[in-house]
Amino acid sequence: MKIPYKILIPFDKSSALPVYIQISSAIIKSIQDGILQPGVKLPGTRQMAELLAVHRKTIIAAYDELLSQNWLEIIPQKGTFITEKLPVVKPLALTTQTHRDTINQTLQNKLNKHSFIYPPPNITHKLAFNDGLPDVRLAPREEWARLYAHYIRYADPALIGYTDPKGAIRFRTLFAKYLSETRGIRAMADNIITTRGSQMGIYLAGLTILQPNDVAIVGELNYRAANLTFRQLGAELVTIPVDEDGLQIDAIETICQQKPVKMVYVTSHHYHPTTVTLKPERRLKLLTLAEKYQFFIIEDDYDYDYHYSNAPILPLASADRTGWVIYLGSFSKQIAPAFRVGYVAANETIIDEMARLRRVIDRQNDTVLEFCLADMLENGDLKRYATKALKVYRERRDFTCDLLKKQLGENIDFRIPDGGMAIWANFTPDFPLKTLSEKVAKQGLYLSDGQIFTQENPTLNACRMGFASMNFKETEDAVRILKKAMASKIP
Amino acid sequence: MKIPYKILIPFDKSSALPVYIQISSAIIKSIQDGILQPGVKLPGTRQMAELLAVHRKTIIAAYDELLSQNWLEIIPQKGTFITEKLPVVKPLALTTQTHRDTINQTLQNKLNKHSFIYPPPNITHKLAFNDGLPDVRLAPREEWARLYAHYIRYADPALIGYTDPKGAIRFRTLFAKYLSETRGIRAMADNIITTRGSQMGIYLAGLTILQPNDVAIVGELNYRAANLTFRQLGAELVTIPVDEDGLQIDAIETICQQKPVKMVYVTSHHYHPTTVTLKPERRLKLLTLAEKYQFFIIEDDYDYDYHYSNAPILPLASADRTGWVIYLGSFSKQIAPAFRVGYVAANETIIDEMARLRRVIDRQNDTVLEFCLADMLENGDLKRYATKALKVYRERRDFTCDLLKKQLGENIDFRIPDGGMAIWANFTPDFPLKTLSEKVAKQGLYLSDGQIFTQENPTLNACRMGFASMNFKETEDAVRILKKAMASKIP
Repeated sequence: MKIPYKILIPFDKSSALPVYIQISSAIIKSIQDGILQPGVKLPGTRQMAELLAVHRKTIIAAYDELLSQNWLEIIPQKGTFITEKLPVVKPLALTTQTHRDTINQTLQNKLNKHSFIYPPPNITHKLAFNDGLPDVRLAPREEWARLYAHYIRYADPALIGYTDPKGAIRFRTLFAKYLSETRGIRAMADNIITTRGSQMGIYLAGLTILQPNDVAIVGELNYRAANLTFRQLGAELVTIPVDEDGLQIDAIETICQQKPVKMVYVTSHHYHPTTVTLKPERRLKLLTLAEKYQFFIIEDDYDYDYHYSNAPILPLASADRTGWVIYLGSFSKQIAPAFRVGYVAANETIIDEMARLRRVIDRQNDTVLEFCLADMLENGDLKRYATKALKVYRERRDFTCDLLKKQLGENIDFRIPDGGMAIWANFTPDFPLKTLSEKVAKQGLYLSDGQIFTQENPTLNACRMGFASMNFKETEDAVRILKKAMASKIP
Repeated sequence: MKIPYKILIPFDKSSALPVYIQISSAIIKSIQDGILQPGVKLPGTRQMAELLAVHRKTIIAAYDELLSQNWLEIIPQKGTFITEKLPVVKPLALTTQTHRDTINQTLQNKLNKHSFIYPPPNITHKLAFNDGLPDVRLAPREEWARLYAHYIRYADPALIGYTDPKGAIRFRTLFAKYLSETRGIRAMADNIITTRGSQMGIYLAGLTILQPNDVAIVGELNYRAANLTFRQLGAELVTIPVDEDGLQIDAIETICQQKPVKMVYVTSHHYHPTTVTLKPERRLKLLTLAEKYQFFIIEDDYDYDYHYSNAPILPLASADRTGWVIYLGSFSKQIAPAFRVGYVAANETIIDEMARLRRVIDRQNDTVLEFCLADMLENGDLKRYATKALKVYRERRDFTCDLLKKQLGENIDFRIPDGGMAIWANFTPDFPLKTLSEKVAKQGLYLSDGQIFTQENPTLNACRMGFASMNFKETEDAVRILKKAMASKIP
């Protein structure tokens, strides 16, 4: 059999990779593909150089490389051979689509399936009533760029090396103080672990406390990513109703009397998705039940700082006396999603366990960003920025609520939210959101369908309408598109 | 009972938090602690103002806040009361250490235990023969700072918002091309997911393929963090021997014939911890077995670029024809640990599943760093930097090996590693590493004990000695300390 070396060994003289490496790699590939079998004699260096039209020295270098890697062997007086020690590889048929499909199917059968985890929506629309995202155009970008560049250029090399899986002690110490002063949470540095964001806080908390089939109580409706996380961890999700005062806590006791409950997840401040605040008596009741039945409370306070009506309400964690509350949040909503610093505050026993798990998940947080944040906490820039953003978002909330009421009138019903970055809007059945959102998407407007938040209520026709990321002009444009799409009933 | 309001309600006029908020928060705290019980009548605003020595308007504002949050209620003609709707909270005894211990014990009993996961060593020593870490003093810090600051200041706002859990498409496209050109891996953007580093790659790969009690084959010895990760995921670890040619692949077939094997983990290029390279016939054999018995290969190529003797050997992934190889690595060793961008390259079916899991773990990677890296790939800076670092590390390897041989002579035995950043050194039994490392630590030198890599060999007296992070002068100092500590047998 004549071996087509010219075809098997392509190379590119303009590549950054030396030609001799390209040649030796191509020969290895042919061996691995079963085309060059063990025992095959290679042409001499002079002959191969002619075949490939390269200098003989190049071939000598390539063969040397292959010899040193033990792909070839020289038999004196006989020549250079693919070493006989290699196992025989059966060549595969040419890769066809059918073949690829078979491979993928085989692999898929061996994987753990998580197809219930939908990918997050890819919002590329010009305008968006999103889930309640901040306007990154307001982010303190100059400050962020300046601080980050400063630390990368000048900080002690240790800062850019491997660091504590709990996060930088400087940041945790400052932040613990900040939590005590502003939110009444009695925390020290040992009670804090930093995370990439709220989502990692939810995952770490769940991973630390949930065993497969443990009962986790969530509201119906509830923040979807939290539900997906607990399901991924194997928990049995049990739902309780949510009304205008938040989770109906009384329902929890009934469940506790039937079976052990491991955890209750709550966004106590601005309930996700419906934006309501958990009222005081339910807060105290929830804490009392946690003590009595010994379950954990994961308190997700992801947008604590955006509260418009009165002072933000103290978190449950501030009233926790026996360590059952795992409090988490992040700076994604305050600075920008790409500024990935979040935190969990809890009893040190829990934090220690989380640090162990963190070590195998991704080793450590971004210490440099933590230092940037520590500076912003110390010099007051974070507070100044938050005050400015709060003002802008309050104006946008009011503007959006007014406009929606005026323009969409009876076809939409909502409560003005006390805080957060989204309105929870109910649409009349004349305008099913599934269809409506597809219709407005064609005009460049993103609108979601709140059906993603429920598996129990097929008639729910409501959605989150984020108001924070659009300015007045954009909101006007968005409402105009929506109004036009709602000019007549959708059949 | 007279309530000691003055003590219950501390405030600090110099705090950033308004005094009325501090007062209302303190009252809430006292309610939550069961000190102010439902039905208790609060002093009138005038009287409370006198008690606390603040202006009456401040008390009015504090009471208003509490009323709006529903902690208080006004009964006309009677006064202001803690609302009767609140549940009664039983006050806890004063927090003593015993009480704290009880709480911690109760919580601990409810947590998932991972005490087998040791925290990573905290190396604060001036000098260190570490696990094989790069010298972050060589990192391209100016370039990194400049690019990062540029993107934060000027990039499209979308870049600092929520992005694709697989990583930025721009980076993945470029990097797939880079993998094909330099490592012979046939990859497209869809075959890549970016991670925080190799560790997250190992975790994600394990989470995607391992079910509890699945058999995972690892070498004895093996990279400890990988073992910890697979154990955390519930896998049954089965070990096979490692010799000077890497994993003894033949042992795998014997195991496969006894029970289903889900995965083999291998650092094929520079085996961790013993630094050997998997030889060609074992590589081909491993791939053949994976096809035959349908198990996954996790190929961790964490320091591919640091290979000194000949050209780096093509990864197993370059010869994978049926999708069983999951290839991973990172830029932590090349740029700096704080530059947390790693990657997994695999069949798109596997990558899709990883992206779903990634979504619940921490939502997304650091897109800004990915853009910085894309620029460095495009403009050749990464290659220039890697070439420079390779030269430095080769010199340090040679310098360190020479010095160790000369100074420690017969008490230490090692092979000069072909690549990577550490030597695997065997010490004579006269110098047990457990004691020796404690002894040199007192002189400011970090030295590890390779017992962390084994659970089967109590007589192993060897360790990784990273040579890359110290310059010549530091290495001389380190070896001097070691020599002095080894001047006479350790009893």
